[in-house]
Formats: sequence, structure tokens, C-alpha cells
Amino acid sequence: MTCRAVLLCSAMQCHRALFKRWLLLTGRKSMVSSVHLSMSSTLSKHNGQLQPRRRQFHWTTRYWSQGVEFTHVRYNVQRLGFAAVTTEDMMFFDGLLPGRVVTDPDILEASNVDWLRTLRGRSQVLLRPQTTEEVSRILRYCNNRNLAVNPQGGNTGLVGGSVPVFDEIIVSTAQMDNIISFNSNSGVLTCQAGCILENLSNYLNEQDFIMPLDLGSKGSCHIGGNVATNAGGLRLLRYGSLRGTILGLEVVLADGTILNCLSSLRKDNTGYDLKQLFIGAEGTLGIVTTVSILCPRKPAAVSVAFLEAPFYILIETSGSNHDHDQEKLNHFLEKVMACGLVTDGTMATEENKIKAIWALRERISEALVHDGFVYKYDISLPLERIYEIVTNMKNRLGKRAKRVIGYGHLGDGNLHLNIVAEGYDQQLLDSIEPYLYEWIAQHCGSISAEHGLGFKKKNFIYFSKPRTAVHIMQQMKVILDPKGILNPYKTLPPFSQ
Amino acid sequence: MTCRAVLLCSAMQCHRALFKRWLLLTGRKSMVSSVHLSMSSTLSKHNGQLQPRRRQFHWTTRYWSQGVEFTHVRYNVQRLGFAAVTTEDMMFFDGLLPGRVVTDPDILEASNVDWLRTLRGRSQVLLRPQTTEEVSRILRYCNNRNLAVNPQGGNTGLVGGSVPVFDEIIVSTAQMDNIISFNSNSGVLTCQAGCILENLSNYLNEQDFIMPLDLGSKGSCHIGGNVATNAGGLRLLRYGSLRGTILGLEVVLADGTILNCLSSLRKDNTGYDLKQLFIGAEGTLGIVTTVSILCPRKPAAVSVAFLEAPFYILIETSGSNHDHDQEKLNHFLEKVMACGLVTDGTMATEENKIKAIWALRERISEALVHDGFVYKYDISLPLERIYEIVTNMKNRLGKRAKRVIGYGHLGDGNLHLNIVAEGYDQQLLDSIEPYLYEWIAQHCGSISAEHGLGFKKKNFIYFSKPRTAVHIMQQMKVILDPKGILNPYKTLPPFSQ
Repeated sequence: MTCRAVLLCSAMQCHRALFKRWLLLTGRKSMVSSVHLSMSSTLSKHNGQLQPRRRQFHWTTRYWSQGVEFTHVRYNVQRLGFAAVTTEDMMFFDGLLPGRVVTDPDILEASNVDWLRTLRGRSQVLLRPQTTEEVSRILRYCNNRNLAVNPQGGNTGLVGGSVPVFDEIIVSTAQMDNIISFNSNSGVLTCQAGCILENLSNYLNEQDFIMPLDLGSKGSCHIGGNVATNAGGLRLLRYGSLRGTILGLEVVLADGTILNCLSSLRKDNTGYDLKQLFIGAEGTLGIVTTVSILCPRKPAAVSVAFLEAPFYILIETSGSNHDHDQEKLNHFLEKVMACGLVTDGTMATEENKIKAIWALRERISEALVHDGFVYKYDISLPLERIYEIVTNMKNRLGKRAKRVIGYGHLGDGNLHLNIVAEGYDQQLLDSIEPYLYEWIAQHCGSISAEHGLGFKKKNFIYFSKPRTAVHIMQQMKVILDPKGILNPYKTLPPFSQ
Repeated sequence: MTCRAVLLCSAMQCHRALFKRWLLLTGRKSMVSSVHLSMSSTLSKHNGQLQPRRRQFHWTTRYWSQGVEFTHVRYNVQRLGFAAVTTEDMMFFDGLLPGRVVTDPDILEASNVDWLRTLRGRSQVLLRPQTTEEVSRILRYCNNRNLAVNPQGGNTGLVGGSVPVFDEIIVSTAQMDNIISFNSNSGVLTCQAGCILENLSNYLNEQDFIMPLDLGSKGSCHIGGNVATNAGGLRLLRYGSLRGTILGLEVVLADGTILNCLSSLRKDNTGYDLKQLFIGAEGTLGIVTTVSILCPRKPAAVSVAFLEAPFYILIETSGSNHDHDQEKLNHFLEKVMACGLVTDGTMATEENKIKAIWALRERISEALVHDGFVYKYDISLPLERIYEIVTNMKNRLGKRAKRVIGYGHLGDGNLHLNIVAEGYDQQLLDSIEPYLYEWIAQHCGSISAEHGLGFKKKNFIYFSKPRTAVHIMQQMKVILDPKGILNPYKTLPPFSQ
């Protein structure tokens, strides 16, 4: 695999005018499925073919973790006072999950290291429950024994929420991958948390439905992980966030209690909406075991336009009538071409071509990993200023950064800012942080749009949330997980702060 | 004003087939704005004209409360140990809110009685703050003094969440009605909680935008009340719930702390999403003072079809191209007419005609109030069984009920079940409850789809939520409002249960 960098001009004036045009379009929710901005992108090619590829590891050897420093060393973290796993604990787990207690060092290494290869835990045991009841019994036991637990889905997270920091027991949802029911009247899918997003998409495709979310990591990520991280992705603009499409959750709390909020109703105003607490809590309040999600009908017509402007822009439209959509899209393109906002482009309506174009966008993240050590930021900003920080950072870092690029979800005001360097460099990091966060806070943005806080960003929460809010979050954590065994060192700064 | 009852046949077989047809349509979110089912409806006429009318009171006299029994008497409620308002308290309030401390008995009566005229509190004081800071100072004072508080918006609630049970101080948002900002790029509106929904709609209309929600009570209800009750309404099917469209909230907690979660970003994954706790909490966790909400562009083309089938059905479509939408709608109507699912109907594309048709739907609730004492239920059910309970209740209650009708939001699985009698009758109520709730629980429905629990339904929460969930809600309440001063006697059953 070779990497090809496509760097584009960034005429800011034109760029802003373009935004205004796009905003006109993004308001037409009925037509526009996704609007994407690839301001400067690194694309990857394989044998000359552009193909979608799964975000997954080749982890049969320990190659993956080579060169990745232990998290607690790099970040100088002190282990909290949890118990260590004993032979007796292992006997309990073996009895509960025969053949599903993993201690194989190779497999463990893959689960100890994050997808970006920037963090490394040293867990010695990974459990693979198959049922909610098993998860409940694991947590009840761990809570009694004061053993820390790291819930893990597809381990595709980008902020270190999915890998242990020390020796936390990894509870994987990999074997909880049953589809429980699908109602083709209501469009409600109910499934276990370990279902891989792409598998769910394929299943629904046969029923003429689609998932309301789509991510670059769909080939590996679990729906439970999507919920736990409140995943955004490529369809948020069209179908809204998981806060609206998740209708119900079953969650196991730290003490093993099974909390059943597994409604499949669109409207249910009976008390506080507890499931919202677990959406985006990154496994710190409970382990999501079952998900009920509202799925849209598969659109009869899908078109993709990949345009060259000051930046590359990818638009997907979906509707029920191909001719109508084509007419609208043509009308739009004529307008933006006529006034010079768009200079060139291509359109696709066939599935294969659409996939090939999307692959350009979906593989940026992967390509960057092959390019060097990635300082990865995922921020929200008011649309008017979304690209400013890329130019700003380029000027600030100069040659110390191999590459500073910005791409993302234009319609959502979400910019993925990526800074690539030869390797991890504390001085470079110090030049980026907290400067970047201060800049974001100053411009009323969010330091994490869709990736969450995980391990890497928990201490920066105050740049996006007031102390009062963080304090309430910490109280919620204490109520639901008094011993703090669930995904420790993540999401929230320590209570004492 | 006279009432005209339109009762329709309910051939269940045909009805179910129809559902399946509709579901095909409702999946097409791009086209369908609202699908409504008026299975049997009571319509109201005024001078032969069908006009939209505000749900508001003519409360210059005490007529409104005549015949309405005090809530604590009818429901045999014991007052909790809050302090009573003293002369010193009144002096404090007068100093803080000069000219905005209401003790006029006529105005108080209107705020003590709910819109359905089924509940009556006996509050002696109503406060009209204008700023968040004033709300904060009121609550800080009340919390210190252990004075109970009843937050009130437009007082259009249907479950008694908006009126005091005893002598709670009413804190009205009526004078907090400023629009703070609107960004026509992002579509984000930020305003004070007391803005009337219809006023916001009118304001946005001038900017070519619309509110993502619309209710029959839009002429009176406040956006803060909409948020506090997680209002559903007529556009939920098209634009999703407030859980997705509310981007930020400012809330004053019981002790006067101002919690600023007033983001206007579409994506923000920094910690637990606290604002979700306050959406639908009915003012029991805090008083919403400012709202940030994502508003869609005004659709260029709107069509309404009002069809006669086994039931009356109202469909609204919205899109960007009138010809396209008309073509789709015609195609659909040809199909359902050809197979006999729809027997007659009318269509409208002009604004006035659309409004006149909508008025038929929006005024059902009002018409019922004029018809007698209304036992009002707002339930969610799996679509396949949505009408079954109406027939069931008709048979069960026989002549003891003047009328048993069901209408609602077909696309949302939301049925408004209304039972009208000459007056309040405990025996009739005992025949309805808990039988109805048991039936709903048995069929995996919700005992409150969009109206909330308020005072009337709080003890029935267990029919829709497990004890574990209610217990966690109670713990949240204790954290955020340790003295329980905020909207007591509402939403949750007492902690000891």
C-alpha cells in the first residue's frame, strides 16, 4: 500500500462563500444525506484500486504493539487501588465462561493496544460473555472483589476509551452478536451490543432498511460501542443523532444489576430518560448489552457527487424517486458551477461507484496511521470558523509537523484535525495542547465532537463543560458505580479535582 | 360554539391493512411530514367557520375554577413539610421582582387550575422573573427557606404537571420571552424559556425557517414547558424528538445554581449529556431558563391530504419541489383509492386551506373539554395493536362513558385515548385504572407517550418502567434537589416506595 497526499488550496474567502451555499443545501434535509468536506486529505490506494476496507487488525503476531509505550508510563498515571486478578478469580471466570476466558498473549496484546497505536494497557485477561446474564454475573463478581473492568467492543475508538490503562479485566462484547428482532412495520431493530455495524447494515439491506448511522470503522465497530461513544458518523445530518434513534437500551450496572430500558417505542415520557445517560458515557456508568434502534427505510435512490472546489466535497443525496433527486442535484450543480464555486467533479448513482468514492473519505483515517504518529483531534466549531484552526495550526507548528490536515462533516460543523509527525514528541504535543483547546473554548466549540473523551481527553473536559456540569456528572458516576470499577481513568477527571 | 361528533366505523381488518400501507409511507421520511390518525373524532365549529384557535383561557373572572375540586381533597394528598409563605418572604420577593409578584386572586385562580379543569391548587403567590439571574435568586431563597416551587409555562399540560397541588409558589416563565439569537447558517435558535411556541414559529417564518415541533397548544405553550415535558406533537415523525433537536439548555437548579449546557453545536461528546436529564423531567430537577434548538428550513412545498377511510387520516408532506411532492402524493393516493383503502378525501396546498384542515385535528382536545369531564390517556403501543384498546374500553365501560374515542399520531404509535363522562366519577375511574395500565404494560406500550406523568400519573410509572430504573431516577432527584422543593408531588412516586 502506498500513500498519496492530495493537498488542496484553501482560499478562505471562496471557502466561506461556499459554506453559505452549502448551508442552503444542508437545510434541505429531505434531499441531502451527507455533506462532507475534505479540505485536504490523504488518500490510500491498493493495487490501483479504490476499495472500502475494514478497520481491523492483523493481530496474529505481536507486531501490532511493537513500539507502543505503556500508557501508564507515557502519561505517568498512578494505578488506583483496585484488586489484582488472582488464581481464584480465574477459576471463577473459567467456571462461568468455559472456553471464553482469554489469556493468550497475542490476542491480549491486540486488545491492550488502541487502533491508533498510541496507548497500551497490560491486561492479563479478556472475558467473552454471550448473554446479559453472564455480563451481570461478571460485574457482580468484579464489584464485590473490587476488580476494575474495561468494556470493549470493536476497539476502534480514537481517544483510548476502549483499551485498559493498567490491568483492568477486558469484557469484550465480541460474542454477543445476536440480532434479537426486527419489525418491518416500525423499523425497530433489537440486537445484542456486540453486533458489528456492517453486519447489521447487511442484514437490514435484505429487508430494505438501513442503519441510521454509518462510520468508516463499520467493518469492526460494535453497535454497543457506537452507543457507548454516541457515535456520529456519516449519516447524522440526514437521520439525526443516536439520542433520537436509540429507542431503548439494556445496560448492566457496575454491581451487576440489569437495567432494562429496552423500549421499542418512539414516544415514551414516563420519568427521566435514563438511557440517555449511558449513550456517550463510554462504558463508565454501565455496560450496554442490548440495543433497540429505529432504522430508516432504504432509500430507493441514492446519488453521490464528489466535487472539486477550494476543497474536495462529497455529497450524498437519498430519496424515493431517482429522477426527482437527479433533477434537484443537477439544478444545484448548475448553480454552483455557473458562479464558479465548484470547478470540477464527478457524480455516481451506481452502488459500486458510490462505494469507491466513499472509500476515499472513509480511508483517510487509516491512511494517516500509515503516514506517521497522529495527533488526532475531533472538534466542533461554529460553521463560520471551521477551517481557521487548520491554517492557524500549520503556521504555529511549521516544519515540526509532517502534515496538518482538516476534514470532516461540514453539515455537522465537525472538523477532524489531524497532525502527523514522525513519532510521539512531548514538545510538539505541548505546542498543540492546551493551545488548541483554549482556541476551541474561545470560539464556543467542543473539544470532542464525536470521538468522546476516553483516556486522552478527560482532563480537558473543562474547556467544553462548566465545573458545575462536571461535578454533577461525577455525582452520577458515584451513584451508578460507587467503587469506580467501570472503565476507570476515562471520561471524567478525578472527583477531587 | 357547538360540538359535532364524527364517529367512524372501525373495521379492524381493513384498518390493519391500512396500517401496513401507511407504514410504507411513513418510512419515507423525506416526504411525509406528519401522518395522523383520527379514528373517531369530535370536531368543533365556530360560526360555521373552521379556524385555528389558541388553547388559552378567558380568565378575567373566577369562572374557570368553578366546580373544580381542590386536588388535595379529590386525591387525598398529604402536604409535605415545606415552609409556608410569610410576610417576610413576600417582602423579599417584592424587593427582587418589583411589580412582578402576583397575588391577584383571579390571576392566581387561572394558574392554580389546569387546562382540563380537573385539578386545583391553592397557591397564594405567583412570581414573574425576567432573567435567569432572577430565577436563580428565587430558587436560592426558596431552597434556603424550604419553600416549595411550581414552575409554570403556558399551563397547557394535561397531566397536572404545571399546577400546584397545595400552596407551592408558582414561578412563571411568562415574562422570559426574549429571542436571544438566531443563526440562519446553522438554523440554531436560542431563546428564553417563556417564548410562546407560536411566536417562535412566526419569527422563524420570516427567516424562512420553522420550529421542529408543532402542537395544538402552540398559541399558549412555552418552549421551556415543551422542553420540560419533552413535547412530541405533530412534527415528531418528520423532524425527530426534542432529544435530538435541543442542542443546549440553561437550567437553574433547586439551590439556585445556574447550569450552563447552552451549546449550539450539533455534535458534542464531552461527558454525560446532562441536558437530557432536564428534557422531560417536568421541572422536578431544575427550571429551564434558556433553550437552544435546531430549526429546519421552511419547506418550499407543503401539501395536506385529509382522507376518509375506515378512519379519518390527515397526511402532511413537505419538500423542496412542489411538483415532485404532488407527483408522489398523487401516485400514493391513486394506489390506495384503487384498492379501496381510501374512499374519499380532499387535498390542499394553499396555506389557509391547510390551516383549516389542521384545525380539525388540533381542536379535538378543546372540543372534548366542552363535551364533559375528560379522562385523558396518552399512550404508546406497538402499531399492530394501536386501536384495540379503544374498542376494548367501549365494551368495558358501556353506557357509563358518554364517549370513548381514540385519535393520535399514527406514525409515532401514539394514541390519545379519551373517555368523556358527565362529571368526575370515582367508580368510572376505578373501572379504567389500573385496568388500562395493565393492558398497556402487557402489550409493551407506554402509559404516557408525550404528555408526561405530572401529578396524575406518577404512581403508575411502574407499568412502564422497572423498579431499578425508578430507583435511579429518585437518586438523581435527590442529587439535584435534595430538599425536594421543585415541583413536588409530581413525576416520581415518593422515594420510600
